[in-house]
Amino acid sequence: MPIPLILDCDPGHDDVFAIWLAAGDPAIDLRAITTVGGNGRLSHTTYNARVVTELAGITGVPISPGAESPLVRLLTPAESIHGDNALGGPRLPVPAREADPRTAIELIRDTLDASAEPVTIVATGPLTNIAMFVRLHPDRLSRIRQVVWMGGSTGRGNITPYAEFNSWTDPEAAAIVLGSGLPFTMIGLNVTHQVLATREVVAGIGAIGNRTAAFGVELLHFFNATYETDQGMPEGPLHDPVAVALVARPGLVTTVRARLDIELHGTETAGATSVDLLGKLGREPNADVATGIDVEAFWKLLEKAIRALA
Amino acid sequence: MPIPLILDCDPGHDDVFAIWLAAGDPAIDLRAITTVGGNGRLSHTTYNARVVTELAGITGVPISPGAESPLVRLLTPAESIHGDNALGGPRLPVPAREADPRTAIELIRDTLDASAEPVTIVATGPLTNIAMFVRLHPDRLSRIRQVVWMGGSTGRGNITPYAEFNSWTDPEAAAIVLGSGLPFTMIGLNVTHQVLATREVVAGIGAIGNRTAAFGVELLHFFNATYETDQGMPEGPLHDPVAVALVARPGLVTTVRARLDIELHGTETAGATSVDLLGKLGREPNADVATGIDVEAFWKLLEKAIRALA
Amino acid sequence: MPIPLILDCDPGHDDVFAIWLAAGDPAIDLRAITTVGGNGRLSHTTYNARVVTELAGITGVPISPGAESPLVRLLTPAESIHGDNALGGPRLPVPAREADPRTAIELIRDTLDASAEPVTIVATGPLTNIAMFVRLHPDRLSRIRQVVWMGGSTGRGNITPYAEFNSWTDPEAAAIVLGSGLPFTMIGLNVTHQVLATREVVAGIGAIGNRTAAFGVELLHFFNATYETDQGMPEGPLHDPVAVALVARPGLVTTVRARLDIELHGTETAGATSVDLLGKLGREPNADVATGIDVEAFWKLLEKAIRALA
Amino acid sequence: MPIPLILDCDPGHDDVFAIWLAAGDPAIDLRAITTVGGNGRLSHTTYNARVVTELAGITGVPISPGAESPLVRLLTPAESIHGDNALGGPRLPVPAREADPRTAIELIRDTLDASAEPVTIVATGPLTNIAMFVRLHPDRLSRIRQVVWMGGSTGRGNITPYAEFNSWTDPEAAAIVLGSGLPFTMIGLNVTHQVLATREVVAGIGAIGNRTAAFGVELLHFFNATYETDQGMPEGPLHDPVAVALVARPGLVTTVRARLDIELHGTETAGATSVDLLGKLGREPNADVATGIDVEAFWKLLEKAIRALA
Ligand SMILES: [Ca+2]
Ligand SMILES: [Ca+2]
Ligand SMILES: [Ca+2]
Ligand SMILES: [Ca+2]
Repeated sequence: MPIPLILDCDPGHDDVFAIWLAAGDPAIDLRAITTVGGNGRLSHTTYNARVVTELAGITGVPISPGAESPLVRLLTPAESIHGDNALGGPRLPVPAREADPRTAIELIRDTLDASAEPVTIVATGPLTNIAMFVRLHPDRLSRIRQVVWMGGSTGRGNITPYAEFNSWTDPEAAAIVLGSGLPFTMIGLNVTHQVLATREVVAGIGAIGNRTAAFGVELLHFFNATYETDQGMPEGPLHDPVAVALVARPGLVTTVRARLDIELHGTETAGATSVDLLGKLGREPNADVATGIDVEAFWKLLEKAIRALA
Repeated sequence: MPIPLILDCDPGHDDVFAIWLAAGDPAIDLRAITTVGGNGRLSHTTYNARVVTELAGITGVPISPGAESPLVRLLTPAESIHGDNALGGPRLPVPAREADPRTAIELIRDTLDASAEPVTIVATGPLTNIAMFVRLHPDRLSRIRQVVWMGGSTGRGNITPYAEFNSWTDPEAAAIVLGSGLPFTMIGLNVTHQVLATREVVAGIGAIGNRTAAFGVELLHFFNATYETDQGMPEGPLHDPVAVALVARPGLVTTVRARLDIELHGTETAGATSVDLLGKLGREPNADVATGIDVEAFWKLLEKAIRALA
Repeated sequence: MPIPLILDCDPGHDDVFAIWLAAGDPAIDLRAITTVGGNGRLSHTTYNARVVTELAGITGVPISPGAESPLVRLLTPAESIHGDNALGGPRLPVPAREADPRTAIELIRDTLDASAEPVTIVATGPLTNIAMFVRLHPDRLSRIRQVVWMGGSTGRGNITPYAEFNSWTDPEAAAIVLGSGLPFTMIGLNVTHQVLATREVVAGIGAIGNRTAAFGVELLHFFNATYETDQGMPEGPLHDPVAVALVARPGLVTTVRARLDIELHGTETAGATSVDLLGKLGREPNADVATGIDVEAFWKLLEKAIRALA
Repeated sequence: MPIPLILDCDPGHDDVFAIWLAAGDPAIDLRAITTVGGNGRLSHTTYNARVVTELAGITGVPISPGAESPLVRLLTPAESIHGDNALGGPRLPVPAREADPRTAIELIRDTLDASAEPVTIVATGPLTNIAMFVRLHPDRLSRIRQVVWMGGSTGRGNITPYAEFNSWTDPEAAAIVLGSGLPFTMIGLNVTHQVLATREVVAGIGAIGNRTAAFGVELLHFFNATYETDQGMPEGPLHDPVAVALVARPGLVTTVRARLDIELHGTETAGATSVDLLGKLGREPNADVATGIDVEAFWKLLEKAIRALA
């Protein structure tokens, strides 16, 4: 039976592939998409989610906008990576389908309530929405099977030397979700920086030959170009779909059980994800932290999902 | 025309008097009560709100529970002041009326939407609910006339040397509301410590002679006893109704326009409310900060309101 | 037998009166003066110490310059209070006497080593020198009877809402000295703001009729003028000599034993002195904190000392 | 002409090899050794410096003890790596030579004053001594050619997930030295973790055949054993001599010019060295940061130096 899943995201080039993987992979039953301010303003990330689901022929998945801005800090969209509209590169067709009238919080609540079994949440943006859900509906947490988050790093960051963008954008939200007791998996840059959109990868996706793949190739060309300029990486790392892949194919991503703490108070390191891989701090492990990935299997999984779309 | 008002509170002895003042004063149109974890656990503060409205004959005011715990930090109920159930002293009658099925956030939203004019929010607990409303419904902020908060201090605190309990409990929430652009008034310990439940005050309330007043006297006896033990103040300061009084009788509480910043990162001073009364920091003023009160007029106002209740 | 004393200071108008009180009061045996960057740059505070000792006929007291800047933070001289040269107002005569060739640390060490009994250190500036001495000569700490510091506050500050200038300038130094185990007394704004240079006080000093007094009156005119502009206090508080008075006349300043912690990490409150007067934090008391003063006795003491000078 | 050098260290197994490299390499003129509390208490690190210089036949190099403890924080010796006496493994011969009677600060000052040309400081422990020298003798900084520090990391740490031991032990000292304007080079774990005491390395040193080498082999056996237990690295990284090698053989260690900031305020990341390798923060570069090393050339250099000793 496919795994019921809510995808909370801020599309964003790599979020788009996460949506497509969640919708196209038969192991996943994508029940809802919620959006958050992150890579771009909420208006853009919500619009982009509508665009890329419609373009890929994904139907029956409601999309609700969530938080415009992080809990405590100011939003700084990642324009140097994702462009002004959070989805630079291709011309965006005007989507016919509207967003769901419910808020993200309401959509998550209703989706959980409507499910016979606990639902997995994959989050590929700042954790603002999930944190607010945790505080607003603590009685519903038992209906969430786990939270799988693309964010953080066991090593260096990308937006500051030690912080990854999603974590840096809303570290307080990450701390809330982590502290909620929900089963929590972190997939950080230490793993996603292995998933690079090489020439071969882009060619492989292009060879799929459908509308979704063609749009995806345009996204990757833009993404690789900005990653080269901004991060010195001519082959951009496709972070977000890794979180979906971990759910879809157990074993594809390797994790270790470890203590994870979010730095909330540093002046240089706010949002750093402190992962005690050596167990030196003497604190209870509280997260599964990704440490490895079968890169080839990942790309095959993603290609197959895109092939199943429009 | 009476001022439409939502009271967000954590009863708590002094919150009770805030409820009664808001319900009994003809200048106020109390539209909704929302509760938050603070002086006690949410289950207690919600229960207490039900008890003291029913006991006082207050009808037609929905009561909805909000956040169980602060946004980022852990809740430590003020048991040394308010007792195990947040309302130590009198025997609490079992209330017949239930809480509203909506969450606090939903009740605030519906109350704002149903009002022809902007609604004032008086908050007499940690600002968790209001902060979540700000992040969930930024489009509704124009329907809020102002936020008047009992919390903080321009001088010393009460729970730590420099932090007042409401601010210390959820400083991030206070920072969110303060940063939202909503007109914001802070009524801190520097003013509320002038509003002491002296022997004469207690006698005056007792002389009102109705059920509400009798219950109020029992509350004050308990409150004065714990304040003596915990804070060395044998006459407890009745903080919360001051915030309602400021709305009900313009001029009764004096304020100055000043810069207010909430300390989020100190190890000794988290939750301290830094009020730049001398304007030395060169930052834009962002709050009205209470600096004085007509104590005699306050007690008269409160007595009159209690007299109007059951 | 007079109390052997080292005065560590940053003159500064009020430091001058501390020097004069320490030199002119027969209960004190002023052995050394060390200077620090604070109210002004080290070059100014050292020069000023030379000026005001020579002018007052104080001989045989070596003066050594210490730290130019705080340990970790940048120095911001208090020019709005003390003027460009840290001693605005009177024309400064060029002193004949040179500073001692030893550093402040060396002078403190030698003074301690030369004393048959433990020596009291009164510090009336940032605690940078004393902190460095603590770290450089931990084996000499038993030769220090106590450290009496003018700095901090149990309530509001003066340079930021919650921090006093000396503490704000070098909070890490204050934490080092406080953590050294040396007996530590803090005399903060809560007390020194009672010691105001009123018209009567200035007239009384003027009436002494010697050169030192005349110079002192000029200092106070300048000091009162800048305090009015900068702090809204037309009668400036003469902070620093209170620390000397506490040593010279036991009982003149009242203290309580309490827990004192220095805020090192706050963004709004760095340097705040958190004094747990209610004993709510459950930590071991570590300081004597001034809470009261006999103001009349203080001024008499100071006048008498000035009368004894040139 | 050999490069005049002061070595400030906390021996510690790897510090010993730094001493030997500095003393045995003809490109270096080792003028003074100063010790600091770090890997062990000051009494141990000073004793160990005496032991290993005498054992290696190093004469004419004064050794002075400096700071017992970090500036602001408490010392936690690295006993799990270096043992109870900071030099676990070999039996330590009782040294005949005494420490110099001067403090470390005095010895550094005198060494600088006695040198016709600026002197390089290599620091292989917490920067406490150098920070105090900076604050005590700002007029002498022009006599220091550069500070080369083994400490920090561009990636993960060793004592906490993001902090290296020397930096974590005294982050404030690191910030002081970094902010002093002295030319500053950081050699962090990202490089020193490439310098592993493999079986071949240990055998190579053993084959030298003199007393120093034999003692060194004993040190490495202990070091490798504790590194395996504590850090999961069966071949311990010989951090400290890399800093000497950088001075002795320009080009052996590769560096980049970058912005370096020390985290002073984080709760999880205090002491983390934030190195802006991508230049994203828009701050002025302030350090040379090691990014690579010729490992083979390093071991040859070290072997040659040990061969030159007793
Ligand atoms: Ca994303
Ligand atoms: Ca309350
Ligand atoms: Ca002073
Ligand atoms: Ca070392």
